Amino acid sequence: MHFTRRLLGPFVGGIAKKLDYYSQFQPSSLTIQQYLDFGRIGTAASSYTFLKNELLVRLANIMQEFSLLPPKLLQMPSSKLVSSWYAESFEDLLQFENAAAADENILKFNEALMMILKRHAHVVETMAEGLIELRENDGVDIASERGIQYFLDRFYINRISIRMLQNQHLVVFGNVLPESPRHVGCIDPACDVEAVVQDAFENARFLCDRYYLTSPSMKIEMHNAVEKGKPIKIVGVPSHLYHICFEILKNAMRATVEFHGVDDDLPDIKVYVVKGSEDLSIKICDRGGGVSRTILDRLYNYMYSTAPPPPRDGTQAPLAGYGYGLPLSRLYARYFLGDLFLVSMEGYGTDANVYLKAVPIEACEVLPIYSTSSRRNLTMGPQVADWSHHVPGQGNRPAHH
Amino acid sequence: MHFTRRLLGPFVGGIAKKLDYYSQFQPSSLTIQQYLDFGRIGTAASSYTFLKNELLVRLANIMQEFSLLPPKLLQMPSSKLVSSWYAESFEDLLQFENAAAADENILKFNEALMMILKRHAHVVETMAEGLIELRENDGVDIASERGIQYFLDRFYINRISIRMLQNQHLVVFGNVLPESPRHVGCIDPACDVEAVVQDAFENARFLCDRYYLTSPSMKIEMHNAVEKGKPIKIVGVPSHLYHICFEILKNAMRATVEFHGVDDDLPDIKVYVVKGSEDLSIKICDRGGGVSRTILDRLYNYMYSTAPPPPRDGTQAPLAGYGYGLPLSRLYARYFLGDLFLVSMEGYGTDANVYLKAVPIEACEVLPIYSTSSRRNLTMGPQVADWSHHVPGQGNRPAHH
Repeated sequence: MHFTRRLLGPFVGGIAKKLDYYSQFQPSSLTIQQYLDFGRIGTAASSYTFLKNELLVRLANIMQEFSLLPPKLLQMPSSKLVSSWYAESFEDLLQFENAAAADENILKFNEALMMILKRHAHVVETMAEGLIELRENDGVDIASERGIQYFLDRFYINRISIRMLQNQHLVVFGNVLPESPRHVGCIDPACDVEAVVQDAFENARFLCDRYYLTSPSMKIEMHNAVEKGKPIKIVGVPSHLYHICFEILKNAMRATVEFHGVDDDLPDIKVYVVKGSEDLSIKICDRGGGVSRTILDRLYNYMYSTAPPPPRDGTQAPLAGYGYGLPLSRLYARYFLGDLFLVSMEGYGTDANVYLKAVPIEACEVLPIYSTSSRRNLTMGPQVADWSHHVPGQGNRPAHH
Repeated sequence: MHFTRRLLGPFVGGIAKKLDYYSQFQPSSLTIQQYLDFGRIGTAASSYTFLKNELLVRLANIMQEFSLLPPKLLQMPSSKLVSSWYAESFEDLLQFENAAAADENILKFNEALMMILKRHAHVVETMAEGLIELRENDGVDIASERGIQYFLDRFYINRISIRMLQNQHLVVFGNVLPESPRHVGCIDPACDVEAVVQDAFENARFLCDRYYLTSPSMKIEMHNAVEKGKPIKIVGVPSHLYHICFEILKNAMRATVEFHGVDDDLPDIKVYVVKGSEDLSIKICDRGGGVSRTILDRLYNYMYSTAPPPPRDGTQAPLAGYGYGLPLSRLYARYFLGDLFLVSMEGYGTDANVYLKAVPIEACEVLPIYSTSSRRNLTMGPQVADWSHHVPGQGNRPAHH
């Protein structure tokens, strides 16, 4: 049964045994503090030794889950392309299984990492193509859709984590330059949250002005509850925070302009940033008319929100995006145990709530683990109802215990 | 296996067969519109005919689930008391199984309903006692706790729905007086939302002033997006909405006074009420210092928040409540497909978000259905993890699809 699946699955041949071996191990979550310490006092040799094993474990875990996707999706050309990239990268890393931490091996390893990063650069768009191919070919039943949604959140957060490991190693121990002398790899130990929000706002505003010829202003309030009056800094990955804020502000601006019309006085976007002893909280509030709870639900759904890429002729509003901005931003927020969710008042406006861990030793990577639970969730058929109706808004928020 | 369980379970003897029979049927969800229509144009006879069957179905469904609680909990004196009440009421209603819709039967039926309402008046407190007894006796493992949480939400919403059915019948067709001539049973077809919020505020303020000698003010903004400038009215159950707002405002006031101190200028509680084409949204914002995400999680947990009843000596802050205010308020909100959840910024304050359906034909009762799914969820053992960590805040919000 096992080998038949293997022969039919996307990952065949020699790597099948190695896949089974490495997927028996759980990925090892690192905290932001551990990344920081490693980048400051670790050595290229110890990083190499840890990484060559951990990358194989993380790849194997997600590749096993990939092979449990609905067969119809696995047959789509784009899915096959993505699985071939993962198979090649897994094989590339296997070359270093028994290679000692000598300089020449570390050098070759760094080159291999750069090649892997490049190879996987368009994984998100290519998987999106796979969903479009599936939708046009055959359609998707509700049970499969649930499995695909479950998988893609895991697949994309696994990808974020793998790229994080690789980038950290390459910036600290390789030839990639850091953002600034202060940065440790991609991590800023003194990330100025207000500056990142301001930066995201200015870039979103630029796009908004260019398309609508107008844009709302932003009013930002900072509250440092831990050290009153001091600027708010966290240990974090600025590019992740930027990605999240840029996506939210683009949406907030688009909603505001489309709801109020280009000629009206546009209501400000209000932003609150609060540093507590546990949570760094950001609330971005617009008065862009809001959405109903049933619509809010679908905004995180990959199948539902997969839109064809914008045409190159400039007719598509640049703020429309590719459809994945919100679910992916949520994964960036959740990656180090934060979160993102929207709260809307239909007819009035929407608040976007972002949370990051304020304490770096508490900010651990949230990683998918291949297990009997995940296998069941991936292949679960239609479920008998235990409630007469499900309350809307459930796709927006995490599971209730 | 079936009969052994029946002999060991809380519901034994003659009613066991009837329980099995009636629990095969799914409860029939009514919409607020159907309650309204029934109350306006229905007859006592048709109400009696529907109700005597539907009550048996709803009782049987939840009694089957009750019997699947952890045996240690079922053995506690308070649990036995509650299950005896349900068994007696089930038997009382069985008397009317074959009784035709004649006046004398309907009269006896109404008396039986009034007795049942009285008998079950203290179910919530008594189940809470059962949890305390269990905690003091033996403690609870995590898997049992999850099953108990799952059960109690279903048990209490089933109770809300049964009391709704009974009260509607008794007010429309019995001797119980309605709130006003406009009311149809407990339903106000033109419920003034602002008036209910104001009422809840004034009563919460009275308690706050009495205990703290100060209280924050409230600023309320109404936005009717469907009919601009018109007052906001919905078809709803004012006592449910009052219960929800009173609970939230009490919490908001307590947090505000305790965070800022009794001598300071207390920041207002800001309330937004928005009527959209689908949702009636209420947002109640305080600046009471907020709570972290990990604490927010536990606020809905029955086991965690079960506090002993306040002493009668006046030492307990009257705003402290019994611990169940929030999870029960959420059930009142969800009962007709609405919702309630809190969003907090640790170090700053908390927003409580309440949703009701704006359109009465869309406002359907959300009822628990006894099924293979619910049986599994009630008796599920510890689960293998599919993620390395779970993102905090998950107890606060509904399940992610």
